[in-house]
Amino acid sequence: MSFSPLVDRLMESLRVLPGVGPKTAQRMAMHLLERDREGGKRLADVLAMAVEEVGYCRRCRTLTEQDICTLCESARRDDAVLCVVESPADQLAIEDAGGYRGRYFVLHGHLSPLDGIGPEDIGLDQLETRVAEGGVEELILATNPTVEGEATAHYIATQLAPLGVKLSRLAYGVPMGGELEYVDGGTLSRAFNGRLPFQSD
Amino acid sequence: MSFSPLVDRLMESLRVLPGVGPKTAQRMAMHLLERDREGGKRLADVLAMAVEEVGYCRRCRTLTEQDICTLCESARRDDAVLCVVESPADQLAIEDAGGYRGRYFVLHGHLSPLDGIGPEDIGLDQLETRVAEGGVEELILATNPTVEGEATAHYIATQLAPLGVKLSRLAYGVPMGGELEYVDGGTLSRAFNGRLPFQSD
Repeated sequence: MSFSPLVDRLMESLRVLPGVGPKTAQRMAMHLLERDREGGKRLADVLAMAVEEVGYCRRCRTLTEQDICTLCESARRDDAVLCVVESPADQLAIEDAGGYRGRYFVLHGHLSPLDGIGPEDIGLDQLETRVAEGGVEELILATNPTVEGEATAHYIATQLAPLGVKLSRLAYGVPMGGELEYVDGGTLSRAFNGRLPFQSD
Repeated sequence: MSFSPLVDRLMESLRVLPGVGPKTAQRMAMHLLERDREGGKRLADVLAMAVEEVGYCRRCRTLTEQDICTLCESARRDDAVLCVVESPADQLAIEDAGGYRGRYFVLHGHLSPLDGIGPEDIGLDQLETRVAEGGVEELILATNPTVEGEATAHYIATQLAPLGVKLSRLAYGVPMGGELEYVDGGTLSRAFNGRLPFQSD
């Protein structure tokens, strides 16, 4: 871009961040160099450490630098319910929503034969072992409501059904706070088919 | 937030970036850890190097890791015109606009007696020395069109007038491509007062 190779490289490097284009990268670089070098130093240190040390939890495969993640180690979660998600981001969303007190299992993706992603790549052997060990009464298949997510949920259900575990899937329907006018047709027809008896409080 | 102290620290650290709140920081952390560790590693390295090594150009005070910045060293710029800006970001904006072929001088701020920012803090002694050395015929005072920027430009003009250099200021007026309806009153009256003879091509 201009006057300093290293500043240019910094702007370029910041663009690995999602949603950061050239203008935003420039603003970020200027902010860090002009106003918050200490914060920039801290970010560099933590980021270097994180990409180096963060791996998968041995038990649930979520992102963690520990052998077993904090959530798996917590004594306050219910071992009888296991929620299967596609990504740690999905897990965070469910945790942020609050209310769920069971454990998780993170696939890091979904089945995709065309991309060569098979059951062992998303840890299904490990999931099967865990369910077979006993203790899990319900398996919530919280993969995404997409074609790939549905197919993955279906595959897991087929594989684990013989183990006698109760299998469930998140409810489909119209999102809370939305307006019907703007809900897509597919969601709307699922919501119609899955309609429930009206309950007055 | 959740399951890994280091991932939490990474999300927290990403928030030093301007415009990055908790949700964006989470998305960035997940993206780097799940999909682009190499980019994350590179960003960490470059950022650590930049906050450590980038200083001010000895000649124009812009951000650079070199003793003299690339632009000051370039033989293809006009030594006779010197543009004074408040920040390297302003300099980048002018460079991106194209057309200007002179040199720069970066103040890194503006005069602000209440905050204890005096002439020496924004390098005015250095600017005066440079102009006194000769060679600079025109000094463009491109500080921001704000109260502080105006005051700073006025102060510099007063100090350097005795040196016999030609002083100029960027034109005020309605921005290109804007609609008059949405231009603020101050800008509009400056544009009226500064109106120019109509030129047909």
